[in-house]
Amino acid sequence: MPLKNTNIVSAAHTKFGVLEGVTLREMFSEAVDKVTVNAGIPKKDIQAAFIGSFIPEMLIHQGHTAPLLVDYAGLRGLPATRHEAACASGATALRAGIMAIESRLYDTVLVVGAEKMTSVSTNKATEALAAAADDQFESSIGLTFPGVFALAAVAHMHKYGTTEEDMARVAVKAHKNASTNPLAQFQKEITLEKAMTPRYIAWPLKLYDCSPISDGAAALVLTSNEKAKKYTDLPVKIIGTGQASASMNLCARSDLTTFSASVEASRQAYKMAGLKPKDMDFAVVHDCFTIAEIIASEDIGFFKPGEGAKAVRDGVTALDGDRPINPMGGLKGVGHPVG
Amino acid sequence: MPLKNTNIVSAAHTKFGVLEGVTLREMFSEAVDKVTVNAGIPKKDIQAAFIGSFIPEMLIHQGHTAPLLVDYAGLRGLPATRHEAACASGATALRAGIMAIESRLYDTVLVVGAEKMTSVSTNKATEALAAAADDQFESSIGLTFPGVFALAAVAHMHKYGTTEEDMARVAVKAHKNASTNPLAQFQKEITLEKAMTPRYIAWPLKLYDCSPISDGAAALVLTSNEKAKKYTDLPVKIIGTGQASASMNLCARSDLTTFSASVEASRQAYKMAGLKPKDMDFAVVHDCFTIAEIIASEDIGFFKPGEGAKAVRDGVTALDGDRPINPMGGLKGVGHPVG
Repeated sequence: MPLKNTNIVSAAHTKFGVLEGVTLREMFSEAVDKVTVNAGIPKKDIQAAFIGSFIPEMLIHQGHTAPLLVDYAGLRGLPATRHEAACASGATALRAGIMAIESRLYDTVLVVGAEKMTSVSTNKATEALAAAADDQFESSIGLTFPGVFALAAVAHMHKYGTTEEDMARVAVKAHKNASTNPLAQFQKEITLEKAMTPRYIAWPLKLYDCSPISDGAAALVLTSNEKAKKYTDLPVKIIGTGQASASMNLCARSDLTTFSASVEASRQAYKMAGLKPKDMDFAVVHDCFTIAEIIASEDIGFFKPGEGAKAVRDGVTALDGDRPINPMGGLKGVGHPVG
Repeated sequence: MPLKNTNIVSAAHTKFGVLEGVTLREMFSEAVDKVTVNAGIPKKDIQAAFIGSFIPEMLIHQGHTAPLLVDYAGLRGLPATRHEAACASGATALRAGIMAIESRLYDTVLVVGAEKMTSVSTNKATEALAAAADDQFESSIGLTFPGVFALAAVAHMHKYGTTEEDMARVAVKAHKNASTNPLAQFQKEITLEKAMTPRYIAWPLKLYDCSPISDGAAALVLTSNEKAKKYTDLPVKIIGTGQASASMNLCARSDLTTFSASVEASRQAYKMAGLKPKDMDFAVVHDCFTIAEIIASEDIGFFKPGEGAKAVRDGVTALDGDRPINPMGGLKGVGHPVG
C-alpha cells in the first residue's frame, strides 16, 4: 500500500565541490537555512532531524555529528540522529524521516546529507572511503572503491560487451546535464574524446568515469498531510520506499554485473507505490562511477540486464531521451559529498 | 499519548569486557543468535535491523557496518541501518526501531548495539572517543572525555558539596550490582577504600570513577502487538520515548551540573507514557563516569538538583533501596561498549 502521510515541502543544497575553508557545520547550516527560513518554513516548526554523513570521524575527527550540526544551525536541543550507510547514508536518513512522519511521532522533520571531504589529501580520502568495504577481508589488502567498481566494469564488459566508450558516454551526458546548474561541481560540457583520455584510475575506469571528491550538503523538509498545506500548494508525496542490503564481500557475490540490493530495494518501492518501471518518467540513481549508472539503470528495471550501455549509446537516457537517467547531472556532474 | 504498538519480546547480550580475538562481526552475530533463534524467534521473521555503533571507523577501519554485520549474522539482504550518536548510538537505534513498528513499515525488527574497542591501545581509544566532543573548538586542543566529566564533577562539587567519596560509593554499588552477572566485565565487589585509591585519571575522577573500555554487543527484538503473542506471553511494552540534544561545546552550556538533553528527553518520555518520576520503580541511566550517574539521577527527576549524591550516601539508589539506579551494575560494572 502506498505511503499516505509523507510529503516533501522543501528541498535545497549548497554548492558542491572543493569548498576551501568551509567547514561541515557551515555547509550544513547553509543547507538548513535554505531549506527552512529561505523557503518560508520557520526553524521552530522543525521537530527532529535525521542526518546522513558517512565518515566525518576519519575526515575531520568528528563523530557525534548530529547534535553538533543542529546546534550550529540554530536548532539547539532538537532531537537529531545521524545515519551512516556509506553512499546510502542520506537515503537511510530519508527513510528514518519517513518513518518518523508515518509513525506520527513527529509532524515536520528535517533530513540532511552532508560531507566535508576535501579537508584531507586524496590518498587519505580514498583510505577513508575504503572503510565502506569489508576491511577484514578486502579493503585492508588494498581494494579501494575505484577497484571495486573496476571489477564490476570488467565483469559487465565481459558478460555483455559493454565498452569503455559506453561508460565515457555516461560521463559526457552527466557533464552536459550538470552544465547549467550553478551549484554543480562541474559546469563545463566535455567531449567524448576528452572522456576517453586514458588517464586510468583503476582499469578500465578512467578519470572521467569517477565522480569527484566533494564537499557539500543537501536538505529536505518532510511533513504530514495536515501541515503540508501550510508550506506549499504543491507538496511532493512520497508514496514508495525500499531498502535492502547485500554481502559487502565481493567474493560472496555470485554476479558482479548487478547489485542485488538495488534490485530488491527498487522492487519494494515499486510494490509499495503500486507502480512499475514503465510508469516512471525518469530516475535518479547512484553513479559514483559511470559503470554504476549503467548497472543501476538495469537493476531498477528501466532496461534488461546488459542493455543499459546500449541505452546510453542510443541517447535513451539523455535529458531529452525516452528514459532520462540522472537528468540533473548525477554524482558525476554535480559532485559526490558521500553523506 | 503512550505508544500503542511496540513490544520487546527478546533481549540478550554477549559477555562484555576485553574479548581478545573476537571481532565486531562475531560479537554481533552472537548477540543476534541469542536474541533470535536461541529465544525461539526464527531469523526469517526479522524484517529490518537498526544498529548502534559509535566509532568502528577509527577502531577497526570499518564504516558501512550495518550490511556487513547482518550478512555475517546470517541475515544477508536485510534492510539494515547504522545509527551513530556517541554513547546514545544504541538508544537512537532503538528509537528508529520503535518508529519502524509504529509506522507499520515493519512488524518485527532487530535492534543491536555493538562496539569493538580493545583492538587498539588505550591512547588510541581515548582519541577515538574524543571524536564525540566538539573537535573544532574543544577536543582538538586536548579535552578528552574523562576531562569533560571531570569538569562536570568539579562543578557539582563546587555547587552542591558532592565529594570524591560520594562518587566512589557509586562505583562500589556498581561493582556490587554487577558481581552476580557472569556477562559483566567486573564481577568482584570493591571496597570504598579501594574505590578511593588516588590513581587519578582526570582530577577529581579516579580509576574507579571511570567505566572501562569494553567489547560487547546487546540486542533486542521489537514487534507489533499482533506478532508479540507469537513469541512470548509477557511482552514488555514500550509506552514512552524521548530524545533531545544540547550544545556539545561546553563553553555554550550555562550549567555543567545538569545535562539539559537528559532533562528534556526524560520529560518527553514521562509525558508520552503519562507517568511521573515518582511512578518509577527503578532507572537505568548513563554512568560512563560515576558523576554522570549522580547527575542523571537528578536530571530524570528521581532527586532534586544537588541531592543525587546524598541519595547514594544514604543507600537510596542501592539494589535494595527505595529508588534503585542501575540495578544491573551499569556501564561502570557491566562494561561500556559504546555502541
